[in-house]
Amino acid sequence: MVQINENYLKLPGSYLFSEIARRVAAYSEANPQAKLIKLGIGDVTRPLCPAVIEAMHAAVDEMGVQETFRGYGPEQGYDFLRDAIAKHDYAARGVQMAADEIFVSDGAKSDCGNIGDIFGTDNVVAVCDPVYPVYVDTNAMAGRAGEYDEKTGKWSRLHYMPCTAENGFSPVVPEGKQVDLIYLCFPNNPTGATANKAQLQAWVDYANTVGAVILFDGAYEAFITEPDVPHSIFEIPGARTCAIEFRSFSKTAGFTGNRCAYTVVPHELERGGASLNRLWNRRQTTKFNGVPYVVQRGAAAIYTDAGKKQVQETISYYQKNAAVIREGLQTAGLTVYGGVNAPYIWLKTPDGCPSWDFFDRLLQEANVVTTPGAGFGPSGEGYIRLTAFGGAAATAEAVERVKAIL
Amino acid sequence: MVQINENYLKLPGSYLFSEIARRVAAYSEANPQAKLIKLGIGDVTRPLCPAVIEAMHAAVDEMGVQETFRGYGPEQGYDFLRDAIAKHDYAARGVQMAADEIFVSDGAKSDCGNIGDIFGTDNVVAVCDPVYPVYVDTNAMAGRAGEYDEKTGKWSRLHYMPCTAENGFSPVVPEGKQVDLIYLCFPNNPTGATANKAQLQAWVDYANTVGAVILFDGAYEAFITEPDVPHSIFEIPGARTCAIEFRSFSKTAGFTGNRCAYTVVPHELERGGASLNRLWNRRQTTKFNGVPYVVQRGAAAIYTDAGKKQVQETISYYQKNAAVIREGLQTAGLTVYGGVNAPYIWLKTPDGCPSWDFFDRLLQEANVVTTPGAGFGPSGEGYIRLTAFGGAAATAEAVERVKAIL
Repeated sequence: MVQINENYLKLPGSYLFSEIARRVAAYSEANPQAKLIKLGIGDVTRPLCPAVIEAMHAAVDEMGVQETFRGYGPEQGYDFLRDAIAKHDYAARGVQMAADEIFVSDGAKSDCGNIGDIFGTDNVVAVCDPVYPVYVDTNAMAGRAGEYDEKTGKWSRLHYMPCTAENGFSPVVPEGKQVDLIYLCFPNNPTGATANKAQLQAWVDYANTVGAVILFDGAYEAFITEPDVPHSIFEIPGARTCAIEFRSFSKTAGFTGNRCAYTVVPHELERGGASLNRLWNRRQTTKFNGVPYVVQRGAAAIYTDAGKKQVQETISYYQKNAAVIREGLQTAGLTVYGGVNAPYIWLKTPDGCPSWDFFDRLLQEANVVTTPGAGFGPSGEGYIRLTAFGGAAATAEAVERVKAIL
Repeated sequence: MVQINENYLKLPGSYLFSEIARRVAAYSEANPQAKLIKLGIGDVTRPLCPAVIEAMHAAVDEMGVQETFRGYGPEQGYDFLRDAIAKHDYAARGVQMAADEIFVSDGAKSDCGNIGDIFGTDNVVAVCDPVYPVYVDTNAMAGRAGEYDEKTGKWSRLHYMPCTAENGFSPVVPEGKQVDLIYLCFPNNPTGATANKAQLQAWVDYANTVGAVILFDGAYEAFITEPDVPHSIFEIPGARTCAIEFRSFSKTAGFTGNRCAYTVVPHELERGGASLNRLWNRRQTTKFNGVPYVVQRGAAAIYTDAGKKQVQETISYYQKNAAVIREGLQTAGLTVYGGVNAPYIWLKTPDGCPSWDFFDRLLQEANVVTTPGAGFGPSGEGYIRLTAFGGAAATAEAVERVKAIL
C-alpha cells in the first residue's frame, strides 16, 4: 500500500487568504453598492513595460521560424540572461558573481520551497515571525517543522524569531541555540522592514561560525530607496561561504504572471564536504527544465537602457503609492512602519485593536480590504499589512476613507 | 552545522549524454571535415505552429496593456486551458475528467520528479529497464532508491522491470512482490513500445488490489497511430482509483522551449485516507506559482481547429521520419522496434554488438550520432535509440549512410 507523505496532513488550512475572501464576499453580498478598494493584494497591477513586450514579441517570432526556433534550453537559464544578471544586479553594485552561480527559475516561491530538496530533514530551521508562509509550509511538508500547535500557531521544531517594533522588525541572532537553515527576507514581507549591513553581518558571522546556511529572499530589492540598505546578502563580507540568495522579476518588473526569478549559490558554499552549487545544479537539471525562452528574453530586456528606465518608472509608481499610504496614515495619527524601501506598509492597529477586528472595521466602515498581520504569525497580531500595488487614485482614496473613520 | 541531503551524494554522474558529447567532440576534432547527423536528440526541431505563435503574440499584447494585464494566475492553470484539455484530450476520447483534476505545469519532467513530494520515503518504486533516468534519479534524491551499485548499474531498493523483445518491451506485473509506486511510460521512451488495453488493465487491477499508485507518463501520446492503443491510462476501467497521468505539450506541439505540461490526479484517488488530488493541489499551490499566461494561451491554441491541423502536420513530419528510419533499417536487415506509435526507434545492434561499440561504429563510419541503449539501463544493452526529431532530408541521408556501412 502506498504511503503518503504524512507531513502534509499536519498542515493547517491556508486560512489567511481564504478567510479574507470569505469575509469580503459576505460583506459585498450584504452591501452590493459598496465600492471596495483592495490594499491587501501582494500582486502587481501595472502592465509589462514596452521593452519587455518588444523583446517577448521578437522571441515569439523566433520560435515560429525554423532557423531561430529554440527547443530545450539550459536548465540553469540562457547565458544572455545569466550574464546580464551578473553584470547589472551584482557587478554594478561591486559584487562579483559568476554566471554559473546564477540559476534562472520560474519563481522565488518555487526556489524557496525547492531549495529544501538539497538539505537533510534534521536541520533546525529559523524563520521570522511574522513570516511569508511558504518558508514554513514547505519545511513542514519536508518534515523539518515537527508538529503544529493550533493554540500557539507554531510548529514544534521551528525556531521563531520575533520581529517587533522593539527590534526594528529585524530578527536577532540566536544565543545559546544552534539553528541550521535561516530564512531572511529583506526588504521584508510583510513588515516592509530592512536590515542594515551591521545586522546582516551579524547573521553572516553567526552562520559561518556554526555552519548554518542563510536563505536570503531579496524579492523586493528593487524597492530600496535608502543608500545604506544592502541590496544583496553578497554585499556582506563572508556571505559567499554561508548564503543562498533568491531574487525575482515578479515585483521588480511586474513578472508575477510571466514567471521568472533566479537563485544564487556561490561556488565557495560547501557543507558536509559538498558544493551546494553542485547540489542545486543537480536538483535543477534533474527536476526542472528551464524557463520559457520567450520569458527569458523578456527578463533580459529589463537590463537594457530603455528597460531599466521603464521598469524604474513602474517601481516609482508603486513607491509613490507607498508614500501616500504611509504619510496619509501617519498624518491621521497612526503608527506606520515600512513603505520606504518596500511595497509593504505595516500598520500598528490603534488602541491595541486585534488584527482581525481592525480588518473588519476597515472593510465595513471604509470599504478597504487589507491583510491582518496575525495571519503572518503570532507577532503579527496587532498589525495590518497594506500594499502599494494598487492604482494611484484608488490608493489615495482608500487612505482618505481610512482617515475619515478614525 | 547544516546537513545536506546525503542521498544526492549517492547519485552517479549523468554519464550518458556527457559521454556521448565527449566522444562526438573527440571525433569531430580529429575529423573536422565530417558532417555529422544527429539522430540521438530527444528534442524537437520544428518551429511552433502559426496558431500558437498568433496566440502568444496576442497574449504578449494583453500583458502590455493595463486593462488586460495578468498578474499571478491560478497555480493549477487557467480555466481556459484546463477546460480545453478536459474537452479535447479526454472527453473527445470518451474519458470524463473534471477541470480541477488537471494541474497545468511547466513540464512533465518537473512533475514526474515533484510528484514524489506527496509520497512517503518508504514506498517501493518500480521502474522499467530501460528507463527515462528522471524517474530513477528523483527517487534516489528522495531516499527511495537505497544504494547504487556501480557494477550492476542498479539501485538496491528499486524494483526493476526488464522490458525486452521477449515481453514486447512491456513490463509484467510483479508476482509475489509488493511494489507501491509504479512508473509506466507509453508510448515508451526509449523503446518506442506501446502497451495495449489488456496490459494496462493488468497493471490497474494490480494497483487497485495492492493499493499501489501508477505514475503514467503519456508524454508521447500524440505519436500514436494505431487505433487500439490507449492514449490515456484513464481509458482503462479502474484507473481513477490508482493512477496519476503526466502529459506534455513538449512533443505534442513543440513546446520543449516553451515549457507547458499537465498532470491529472482524479478525485477518487485516495491513499491512507487522503485525497491525492488535494495533496498535489497543496504541493502545487505552496511550491509552484503557475505557468506564464502567454505560454498557457499558446498551449490552448493547439486545441483550435487551425491549431489541431497544424500540430498534426508537425507530428506527421516526425512520423514520416520515424517510418524512414524504421523501414530503411529493416530493409538493411536490421531488427527494429518502435517508431510506429512513437518518435523513438529501438534498434537491435547486429551480431550482439554492445551498445557503445555500435554507437562508435555509427559515429565513425556513418557519421551518425545515436544514443546507446545501455545508457538507459542494463536491459538496454545491445540496443541503440534513434529519434525522429531531425530534419527529413538529414534523416533520410543518415539512414542511407547506416545502410551503406552494414
